[in-house]
Amino acid sequence: MSSLKLPQSVPSPAEDAELLHKAFAGWGTDEHLIISILAHRNASQRRLIRHVYAETYGEDLLKSLDKELSSDFESTVLLWTLEPAERDAYLANEATKRFTSSNWVLMEIACTRSSIDLLAIKRVYHSQYKKSLEEDVAYHTSGDFRKLLVPLVSSFRYEGPEVNTMLAKSEAKILHDKISEKAYSDEEVIRILATRSKAQLGATLNQYNDHFGNSINKDLKADSKDDFLKLLRATTKCLTCPEKYFEKLLRQSIRKLGTDESALTRVVTTRTEYDMERIKEEYQRRNTVTLECAIAGDTSGDYEKMLLALIGHGDA
Amino acid sequence: MSSLKLPQSVPSPAEDAELLHKAFAGWGTDEHLIISILAHRNASQRRLIRHVYAETYGEDLLKSLDKELSSDFESTVLLWTLEPAERDAYLANEATKRFTSSNWVLMEIACTRSSIDLLAIKRVYHSQYKKSLEEDVAYHTSGDFRKLLVPLVSSFRYEGPEVNTMLAKSEAKILHDKISEKAYSDEEVIRILATRSKAQLGATLNQYNDHFGNSINKDLKADSKDDFLKLLRATTKCLTCPEKYFEKLLRQSIRKLGTDESALTRVVTTRTEYDMERIKEEYQRRNTVTLECAIAGDTSGDYEKMLLALIGHGDA
Repeated sequence: MSSLKLPQSVPSPAEDAELLHKAFAGWGTDEHLIISILAHRNASQRRLIRHVYAETYGEDLLKSLDKELSSDFESTVLLWTLEPAERDAYLANEATKRFTSSNWVLMEIACTRSSIDLLAIKRVYHSQYKKSLEEDVAYHTSGDFRKLLVPLVSSFRYEGPEVNTMLAKSEAKILHDKISEKAYSDEEVIRILATRSKAQLGATLNQYNDHFGNSINKDLKADSKDDFLKLLRATTKCLTCPEKYFEKLLRQSIRKLGTDESALTRVVTTRTEYDMERIKEEYQRRNTVTLECAIAGDTSGDYEKMLLALIGHGDA
Repeated sequence: MSSLKLPQSVPSPAEDAELLHKAFAGWGTDEHLIISILAHRNASQRRLIRHVYAETYGEDLLKSLDKELSSDFESTVLLWTLEPAERDAYLANEATKRFTSSNWVLMEIACTRSSIDLLAIKRVYHSQYKKSLEEDVAYHTSGDFRKLLVPLVSSFRYEGPEVNTMLAKSEAKILHDKISEKAYSDEEVIRILATRSKAQLGATLNQYNDHFGNSINKDLKADSKDDFLKLLRATTKCLTCPEKYFEKLLRQSIRKLGTDESALTRVVTTRTEYDMERIKEEYQRRNTVTLECAIAGDTSGDYEKMLLALIGHGDA
């Protein structure tokens, strides 16, 4: 469930565009006004505002925001204002340019978006970057990471609820055999994780748990420092219980000595309109404090205000 | 270019549906009438006829055709009447159930359809078979064939004309190095073939030719009996000059002692509305005889008439 709070009566896109334009005028910038508008409009409303703004003032709203804002507040507002597919294509493209940690961003986008949403991202990627997401991921990764990430970003998974129990049993056994042999990047492991529907995979991991006494993620903890194993565990989480994955990512990025703003910003801007309520619930269960309190304790200023508005704190 | 011939004035779908229904009535079946209608309607016209037929007579046209027709003529009419994406999903699904030669069908569909068409096939696959094309291909293949086929069917290639010459040079060298080492199924070879746009790949293979003295397919002929090498050569052909691939497939299926009807039927029904004119040109250039003559010399009866009508022989 989305954490977004919309006003009872939403102003017209023209009114919003005009107010935003006023917020940029003169010496200072009215950050409060920007938050009060953009953090309380859904994706299609923001698209309309951007459209009207460009028509009226001859400049992309994102460009104006880019000129007026700075640092973490800026990146949050910019990421949020983008359309979901545009935003994910941007995040994925940035990730292909960096190393190690960026593998997580690619896996996260590939595994937690729906097939249709992932496809929309790939289309935007074509038109924005004049190449495919798959080729960039394949080109910029290597070894076991490539073996896992390329099929993950390439798959167009079936999304129906059908489950084949016999298949779940036999593939749970394959997974267990390979993990016992420490053949973590075996092509059968990758095939099962990368191509099966989330429903089927859920059934397979339940069979794993029932028949072999441990959850797959426990068995994948053989070496807690191994980066590939970490990514594999995160993959199974993203595919079967994304809210737990996001809770942990938030927890780690807030607890870090110096918050990891890029992860915090990414999770908040990408999940607000999808499952943020579910993630907040999970966060409170795991950390005793609410996500609101944790964010408020660890961030400040307009960045804090923007994040809190997005996760549904206060009124629209 | 399509070889389909449409009548100057196309009857309404209702008239066509009525005539088809009459063709099935009484003792015999009027095959001539069936050909005269279905072999001269394009995909959207056939869809409308099927729609009206089902509404009027309470039965899917395909089911009626299935009852009335038989053998190669039947499979040609049925395949042709299906929508392109439905037809390819069906062919791909059948291919995942069989062995060896079916690898070719999967590669052919993955490499000669546009990204958007391949995507439409994957959507139909989801709704028809309640699973994804990728998972079936991954499940039913193994070894080097799986390594190549899964990425080929999974990719959503960029289709723009942009070419990066530096990249083409460096990847031509990678291909040449790997082929020299006989590392034909090396992950870099697969990555390049499976993810690069067709334009980029064309440039890379041209660089290969220019810098290493041979075309890649010549270098891939080291062992002319090796099935994986054969499939690799067919893959580069499908990606860069599909008409040559189809010409050869037609030539081989017609020349065989006993025509290979399944390949012949597949090429004619799947290419008629796309590039059959180009394939016919290539066929005549390579075999001196026209494709019409070759088909007429090797097939007979209604099957022959249907194929000839589809490749544009005679009037609508």
